[in-house]
Amino acid sequence: MNTITCPIPVQEREHIQLAHGGGGKLTQELIETIFYPAFKNDILEQEHDSAQIAMPGGRIAFTTDSFVVDPVFFPGGDIGELAVNGTVNDLLCSGAVPQYISVGFIIEEGFAINDLKKIVQSIADAARKANVKIVTGDTKVIERIHGNQIYINTSGIGSIPESVALSPKNVKHGDSVIVTGRIGEHGICVLSTRNSLGFETDIKSDTRSLNEIVRNLLKDIPQTRVLRDPTRGGLSSTLNEIAHTAGAGIEINEEALPISKGVESACELLGLDPLYIANEGILLVFVPGEYEKQALEIIRNSEHGADAMPIGKVIPDPAHRVYLQSAFGGKRVVEVLSGEQLPRIC
Amino acid sequence: MNTITCPIPVQEREHIQLAHGGGGKLTQELIETIFYPAFKNDILEQEHDSAQIAMPGGRIAFTTDSFVVDPVFFPGGDIGELAVNGTVNDLLCSGAVPQYISVGFIIEEGFAINDLKKIVQSIADAARKANVKIVTGDTKVIERIHGNQIYINTSGIGSIPESVALSPKNVKHGDSVIVTGRIGEHGICVLSTRNSLGFETDIKSDTRSLNEIVRNLLKDIPQTRVLRDPTRGGLSSTLNEIAHTAGAGIEINEEALPISKGVESACELLGLDPLYIANEGILLVFVPGEYEKQALEIIRNSEHGADAMPIGKVIPDPAHRVYLQSAFGGKRVVEVLSGEQLPRIC
Repeated sequence: MNTITCPIPVQEREHIQLAHGGGGKLTQELIETIFYPAFKNDILEQEHDSAQIAMPGGRIAFTTDSFVVDPVFFPGGDIGELAVNGTVNDLLCSGAVPQYISVGFIIEEGFAINDLKKIVQSIADAARKANVKIVTGDTKVIERIHGNQIYINTSGIGSIPESVALSPKNVKHGDSVIVTGRIGEHGICVLSTRNSLGFETDIKSDTRSLNEIVRNLLKDIPQTRVLRDPTRGGLSSTLNEIAHTAGAGIEINEEALPISKGVESACELLGLDPLYIANEGILLVFVPGEYEKQALEIIRNSEHGADAMPIGKVIPDPAHRVYLQSAFGGKRVVEVLSGEQLPRIC
Repeated sequence: MNTITCPIPVQEREHIQLAHGGGGKLTQELIETIFYPAFKNDILEQEHDSAQIAMPGGRIAFTTDSFVVDPVFFPGGDIGELAVNGTVNDLLCSGAVPQYISVGFIIEEGFAINDLKKIVQSIADAARKANVKIVTGDTKVIERIHGNQIYINTSGIGSIPESVALSPKNVKHGDSVIVTGRIGEHGICVLSTRNSLGFETDIKSDTRSLNEIVRNLLKDIPQTRVLRDPTRGGLSSTLNEIAHTAGAGIEINEEALPISKGVESACELLGLDPLYIANEGILLVFVPGEYEKQALEIIRNSEHGADAMPIGKVIPDPAHRVYLQSAFGGKRVVEVLSGEQLPRIC
């Protein structure tokens, strides 16, 4: 039997080994010394294979997202925080109250254990901020490539209040389109940290969970049509999806788009369109036109909503397209992203 | 703006490109032409960011597992089937009725789309067999390494009937330990398909979901203490975990272990202990001693339970250890796996 217990040299204890994913002693050590202390909660402490959760009857939202962002640390956040916020925001977009999150790690052999600890702490902090519990998890280890990669899957559950009925199918002509914050921050931030790209900015990722905006909005405006987080593919993809499902056109005004000087300059420099850049901490909100003013006030008075802007409206259009009214008076069709503007953005 | 629509050369259409994970047109194409047709169900067709599911009140089980098995195709199954069955069996071990599964793909650039289709079909088939719905998913693409890797995360939800109270904490002296099928099949199968290992067998993976065994057992013997699937780390790790949590010893009899000639020979040839080899399609079942005979009959009459064997019992032991009574009369301690016997087994 080949399970000889060797003393592990010091340098080996500082990096992930294949055996950390083997289901034996080292896996248990990771769980007991790193994961449990950071994620501590009553459900996790049951130590079952599955989390056992008491739920009231009714609708729940269930979502999953894997994160492969490169680099794993970037200005304004890291892959751990991103993984929690992304799944929390997906639940929020269903109108659910985010409650329980699972975390699945796939870690490259040779990954620094100190980096893992930082990421785990970010996950714990982001979960606390978003008021969700990490209740179940899994760890696998793959052979070394560069020794600096970790992939994280988060799945999440939340209960949907009975009054909520969000759907792109509800969207109607005359609806107002609001974006809750400045666009393009996450995408340009990750782009600027890729060594080979040779430009630097002080732009930070906008990764954050948007619980307060959604809670306040749905409380006061139950007529809200749909909420979406325009992540990969940027505003253009999300707007096109909604137009397609709603069977309507959407017209947005270039001048109304909230965009920082930094993102604007970076886009000009690189020949990129901010409508195609990924976001992590903003939402697109569709409300009936008559609620625009009230919605805007609610969002601007909520955490992370100060830069909210009404950016356009839903129009009749048999082609179900998205149009951009440019600052110079022209109008063009905003197509769905057809290539990959920047891989491994989230 | 850099989203020029180029005609894609034929060979490019046969392999995964980075843009398939970009959230734009190619991502949508994967979803519409490969995922939706295979996974088709009423919840998936809502096309929300999150699945919206009506649940009765009460306890639910929530679990997650990532699969990184190498190679992704092996005798008896593939990574897709494994990913569904693994998560279904985890839910079953909580006493839950498995219901809803999420699928998160991380695919290497260059992965053959035909292979992806095969894997997706396996997922759909395994879900149908296990009576679960694939209700939400996600796809990310990472840069090419060897062009043959895919990682799959499945998370799952199931409702736990009120009568069920499975826990390793329930385990008591005198309990009987039953294994529902032959051990070591999955581990030896994957090992034998790794090119470098230079031996061949006709052993197939035992990947399968065990709904019927669990349903029949919990219906007739609600006194069942605990169920566990001894995957990574094999029987030794699972038995040690249960002994530790129960605060008791476990004694198993080598002669009683159900093991095929093929696995036995492979273990002898490679100097491996079958107690440390991964399984995918068997359960460890703990029942009060007086229910052993009845439990065995129920399991043997259920699908995938024909080879079930009572392999040992729970004993008082202040050290909370697992002991093996050997065929030759000796007795030794069965330690937890301390290294990595075989990486990327699941």
